[in-house]
Amino acid sequence: MLDEKLLSIHQATVLQQWTLKQAIEGIVRAKLGAISVWRDKLKEIGPAEAARLLDGNGVAATGLSFAGLITSCDKAEAAKARDEVRRVFDEAAQIKAPAVVFVAGGVDPRDKDIAAARSRALEGLASLVPHARAAGVKIALEPLHPMICATRSVLSTVRLANQWCDAVGAEDVVGIAVDTYAVWWDPELEESIAKAGKRICAFHLSDWLVDTQDLRLDRGMMGDGVIDIPRIRRMVEAAGYTGPREVEIFSARNWWKRNPDEVVRVVKERYQTAV
Amino acid sequence: MLDEKLLSIHQATVLQQWTLKQAIEGIVRAKLGAISVWRDKLKEIGPAEAARLLDGNGVAATGLSFAGLITSCDKAEAAKARDEVRRVFDEAAQIKAPAVVFVAGGVDPRDKDIAAARSRALEGLASLVPHARAAGVKIALEPLHPMICATRSVLSTVRLANQWCDAVGAEDVVGIAVDTYAVWWDPELEESIAKAGKRICAFHLSDWLVDTQDLRLDRGMMGDGVIDIPRIRRMVEAAGYTGPREVEIFSARNWWKRNPDEVVRVVKERYQTAV
Repeated sequence: MLDEKLLSIHQATVLQQWTLKQAIEGIVRAKLGAISVWRDKLKEIGPAEAARLLDGNGVAATGLSFAGLITSCDKAEAAKARDEVRRVFDEAAQIKAPAVVFVAGGVDPRDKDIAAARSRALEGLASLVPHARAAGVKIALEPLHPMICATRSVLSTVRLANQWCDAVGAEDVVGIAVDTYAVWWDPELEESIAKAGKRICAFHLSDWLVDTQDLRLDRGMMGDGVIDIPRIRRMVEAAGYTGPREVEIFSARNWWKRNPDEVVRVVKERYQTAV
Repeated sequence: MLDEKLLSIHQATVLQQWTLKQAIEGIVRAKLGAISVWRDKLKEIGPAEAARLLDGNGVAATGLSFAGLITSCDKAEAAKARDEVRRVFDEAAQIKAPAVVFVAGGVDPRDKDIAAARSRALEGLASLVPHARAAGVKIALEPLHPMICATRSVLSTVRLANQWCDAVGAEDVVGIAVDTYAVWWDPELEESIAKAGKRICAFHLSDWLVDTQDLRLDRGMMGDGVIDIPRIRRMVEAAGYTGPREVEIFSARNWWKRNPDEVVRVVKERYQTAV
C-alpha cells in the first residue's frame, strides 16, 4: 500500500468541475489532505482567502502551477513575464506551497531560434532566484513533452533540467519536477533522474493513452495507458525523493466531463493499483 | 540556390491526391527527377511496374518508406513483422531505392515495457542486416518524434540511433534518417548529428506548426512553422551528408486537400527560400 498522505490531487485533474474552494472541500470529503493548486483558480479568490480555506480544512498545498513563459525575444515582454513569475512566487508563499512549477516557454516564432530561447530561459531563471529565495519557495523546473516545445517549454528533458541546475548553481532554490507523462519516452531517463537526485522536488502522475487525440488535454488516468508508472516512481525514490505524488490529468474528453467526486475516487483507487 | 537535383518529393506530401504513377508524372511535369516512395502506393502496382515507370520517366527513387514495427512482445508476431521487413528490402532493390526507412515500432500495451521494446527492436534490427546487405539496400533508422513513441517508434532520438548503430556494427548497411520534424526539439541534436557523421543516409524536411492539431498528420510546409530548417541542413551537411533532401509533409487538413501540382510548385519555391 502506498501512503495516502503522499497523494495530492492536482487541480488540473478536476479543472472544469471545481473551484479551488470546491476542490478543497472535495479533497476533505475523500479523506485526503493535499492539493496542488492551479494558478488561474487561485486568482479567482486570491491567496489570502485560499490560505484561509486550506488552513481551515486542514488541506496542504503541495505546489502551485505554474509560472514561466519567459522566452520572448522581445526584451520588454520578457521582463514583464519575469515580473509575473515573481508575483506567483509571492502567492505560493502566501498559501504555504513549497514549490512553484516553472514552465520555461516555447520557441518565439519571430526568431525561430530554439537555442536562443533556451539561453533566454536560463538567464531569466537565474535572475529569478533571489526573489524565490526571499519568498522561501522552490522553483521546480518541469521538463515538458517535446510535443509542446514550440508553444510551452523548450525545456524538454530531465538531462537539460540538470544542466540548467548546474549552470544556475542555486541548489537551495532550483529543483526539478518529474512528470511521468512528459518524460516516460526518454531513453536517458534513468541516468538523468539518478543525476537529479535530491533536486527532484515534485512528482506528477498521469498516463499516456495509445489513442492520444490532443497535444495537451488528453492525458490518461494511471493504468489506462502505456507508461510503466511504478518503474518511474521507483526511479525518483531511488534518487532520494520522498515527497508528494501529485496526480495531474488534463483530460478534456473524459475526466473533465465526469462527476469530480467520482474522479477523485478513481484516483485513490488507481493510486494503489497503478502507481 | 540549392541544387534542385537534390530535391526529392516524398509521396507522403501528396498521399491523398496521387497514385505512384501520377506522382512520377507530376514530378516530371515539375521538371524534378526524384521521388521517395510510399510503400502502400508501391503495393498498388507492384515493384516491377514501378521500376518500369521510374526508368521510363527518368525519375529516381531516393528511398522507400517504410518497414519495421517489430516490437511486439509476441514472438510469432515479431517474426512475421521481420519477414515483412525483408520483403520491403527486396522491393526497394527492385525499384533501385538505395535505402528503406526503418520505423522501429511502439510500446506493446501488453507489457508496457519501453526498455524491453527497445531491446526487441535492436535485436530484430541486427537479425535483418544480412538480408538488407544481400539486397544491396541500406536500413535508414529513423528516430521519430517522442509523441508517437507509444504507437510507432521507441527510437526517439538521434543519440539512441547512434547507440543502435554502435551496437549492431554494420556500418555498410545500417544508417540514420534525420527528419527535421522529428528531431528539431532535441537539446543534443548538434552533437548527435556530428557523431552520426557518414551514417546519415536520408534527410527529411517539413516544418512544425505552432497550432499543431494532430500527432501524425499535421505537418507544415517548410517556412510555415518554427523549425530553423537551414540550421539543421547545415548540421547534416557538416556531418558529411551530400544526398537528397526529401520533402515529407503529412498534412490531412491542408496540403492533402490541395491540387498536387500546386503543392509541388510550393515545395520547389520553399526549397529555395526556407531550406
